[in-house]
Amino acid sequence: MPISETWLLPDGVADVLPEQAQVIERLRRQALDFLAQRGYQLVYTPFIEYLESLSSLSALNHDLDLVTFKIIDQISGRLLGVRADMTPQVARIDAHVRPVSGVARYCYAGTILHTKPQGLTASRAPLQLGAELFGHDGLDADLEMIDIMLGVLNVAGYQQGLHLDLGHVGLFRSLVEVAGLNKDQELELSELYQRKALPELKDFTASLNYGSDFYELGRLSGDLDALAQHLSQDILNHASFHQALTSLQTAIEQIKSRWPQVCVGVDVVELRSYHYHTGLMFAVYAPNHAMPLAQGGRYDGIGEHFGRARAATGFSCDLYRLVANQFAQVELIVAPSGREQNLQDVIANLRQQGHHVIQLLGQDQLDSVPQATHQLVNTNQSWQVQTI
Amino acid sequence: MPISETWLLPDGVADVLPEQAQVIERLRRQALDFLAQRGYQLVYTPFIEYLESLSSLSALNHDLDLVTFKIIDQISGRLLGVRADMTPQVARIDAHVRPVSGVARYCYAGTILHTKPQGLTASRAPLQLGAELFGHDGLDADLEMIDIMLGVLNVAGYQQGLHLDLGHVGLFRSLVEVAGLNKDQELELSELYQRKALPELKDFTASLNYGSDFYELGRLSGDLDALAQHLSQDILNHASFHQALTSLQTAIEQIKSRWPQVCVGVDVVELRSYHYHTGLMFAVYAPNHAMPLAQGGRYDGIGEHFGRARAATGFSCDLYRLVANQFAQVELIVAPSGREQNLQDVIANLRQQGHHVIQLLGQDQLDSVPQATHQLVNTNQSWQVQTI
Repeated sequence: MPISETWLLPDGVADVLPEQAQVIERLRRQALDFLAQRGYQLVYTPFIEYLESLSSLSALNHDLDLVTFKIIDQISGRLLGVRADMTPQVARIDAHVRPVSGVARYCYAGTILHTKPQGLTASRAPLQLGAELFGHDGLDADLEMIDIMLGVLNVAGYQQGLHLDLGHVGLFRSLVEVAGLNKDQELELSELYQRKALPELKDFTASLNYGSDFYELGRLSGDLDALAQHLSQDILNHASFHQALTSLQTAIEQIKSRWPQVCVGVDVVELRSYHYHTGLMFAVYAPNHAMPLAQGGRYDGIGEHFGRARAATGFSCDLYRLVANQFAQVELIVAPSGREQNLQDVIANLRQQGHHVIQLLGQDQLDSVPQATHQLVNTNQSWQVQTI
Repeated sequence: MPISETWLLPDGVADVLPEQAQVIERLRRQALDFLAQRGYQLVYTPFIEYLESLSSLSALNHDLDLVTFKIIDQISGRLLGVRADMTPQVARIDAHVRPVSGVARYCYAGTILHTKPQGLTASRAPLQLGAELFGHDGLDADLEMIDIMLGVLNVAGYQQGLHLDLGHVGLFRSLVEVAGLNKDQELELSELYQRKALPELKDFTASLNYGSDFYELGRLSGDLDALAQHLSQDILNHASFHQALTSLQTAIEQIKSRWPQVCVGVDVVELRSYHYHTGLMFAVYAPNHAMPLAQGGRYDGIGEHFGRARAATGFSCDLYRLVANQFAQVELIVAPSGREQNLQDVIANLRQQGHHVIQLLGQDQLDSVPQATHQLVNTNQSWQVQTI
């Protein structure tokens, strides 16, 4: 590598310079404070773990395994994974490191790494911030999670134009169970749903048990009322299907009443990370953003991998995505050099008020600090800050 | 790996639970604010880079190369390094990404990874916080760096009993140059100095050019006055040796006057990271800590690797080491469930004041939240927070 290229960075990885770092640092603090005030306790999770520990989700979600960087541990000779998602780590803490008998709430913020970007505009090193709630399987927990997710977006300045997409894997999953589909049929169906390929879906479902219900689920995936009219009574009366549908209806009502300015949509065959989620799922979009700002859902049973299955729901977001193209003006006041008490006091005062003040070094002049925005000057026996 | 072991973490890697995370988070913020107020601008550096970019120091410091985890970039097929030190990254930013003609100050905080712990009690994943000052080669810059390093330790609660060790590679280096030693002799000598092996040093230096000066440098390494009496006039008058000695003397005087409560020591043959440093070096120790709390020094020329050599000095520390064994009481107020406005207002108020409040979910009772420290109860028509 010639010297002229040593400053190049790998694709999907970037320096964050002061103008943007200041914005992100502020949001990181405000969001963590917001979550702490709602009882979500901060944890820092390790950057590397034994691959087997990280794979509580990747066993279910092959995608996560694919994006996890693997390295050899020179001490144990074993394979380590670099965290590609902090959720399995927090689940490990809840299951084993800090097991409590009741409800536990955690939040976290930190860099995760992906071998490949997860989306066209995605970074390979997102700054993941999120929260998890363990030990409660009721809708109240899901609603709280959606509440705090929207709350964090509010803190980040997203107050208008948000679109919340809701889904529930229970509808499709109980229909599959009732119809007695095999794994291949289930996979094929979920793929057709994802592609919104209605004509193919029609052909494929024609020969299936409950074929018309599978077709209507895809055709009317965004309209719960229409679904209730077009599905067979058989499936509508099925206990777990009924429960999933009711949860979804109640969730929509509740969210609309709590967040009237948020546009709520539903997609009962949105099966993103279907193998991993077990109940209500949600994603929030903003205008002009192709990818969701934040997303999450229920993933009961995750702790099983660590010997303790727990009800769980959570959300996460990438702080870099939330502040894309936001830059702060970085203030810098330049004071003359000198150790005299009066000057030192003035500088100490300014710093105590939160201002950023440097003193010129040696014989340096103001032009030695090109980033300077203000200077401290002595006029009429008093020190004053002037814009440059 | 059986389920019973999936929660095990690799050696030198740990979860940080809420009681400690709260302490670290607070210190991280206070320290970064302290540095920002002194004009050190925050940057976030990438967690992975092409190995060649990280090796600006490792070319000089083989140790750094040894502790850097290497991974294959699946996108470019090239070798990536996981940052083992953020200093070379900040130097890259100063040299190329954000080149300014004068003085530039940066600060940073983030996890770094080491393949092997750097010391008996060291973590493999320190939370490195530090600052770098580029573009000034005078002693004023070194003194500012020592000032802010001690300032950060002050913020972290280390106000008494600190011991600052000063060194300057210029003394040994100019003596080597004057005496015309070859590389092998230089290495052997630096190793004898590090081991404080005086009898061996005496034997080895007996046959060297300026042998007695080399011996005295080791024997009197902690006493500048004695050195000035026992070294030959030849070397004392040598320009770069003289300058190094004078810098060291001035630095000691200045620091003693600015930080009277800090015990200042000197060791002119402390050659830790000798190949990397180019001037004044410093490390701070606290009682009952085997490893330094913070350390740094001058490393002029580092930017050369990126096509732009710059004067540079910096310090860094591991926040985990600074707060070892400090735990906070994590407060958690439990409020009853319910959406009524009066209750919601009381909760919102408490949160706005910074308190951590959760609402019970569904039909849950207080015992569903074992971490609770307080509860919100309605007595005589008013809501009150009571200790549990």
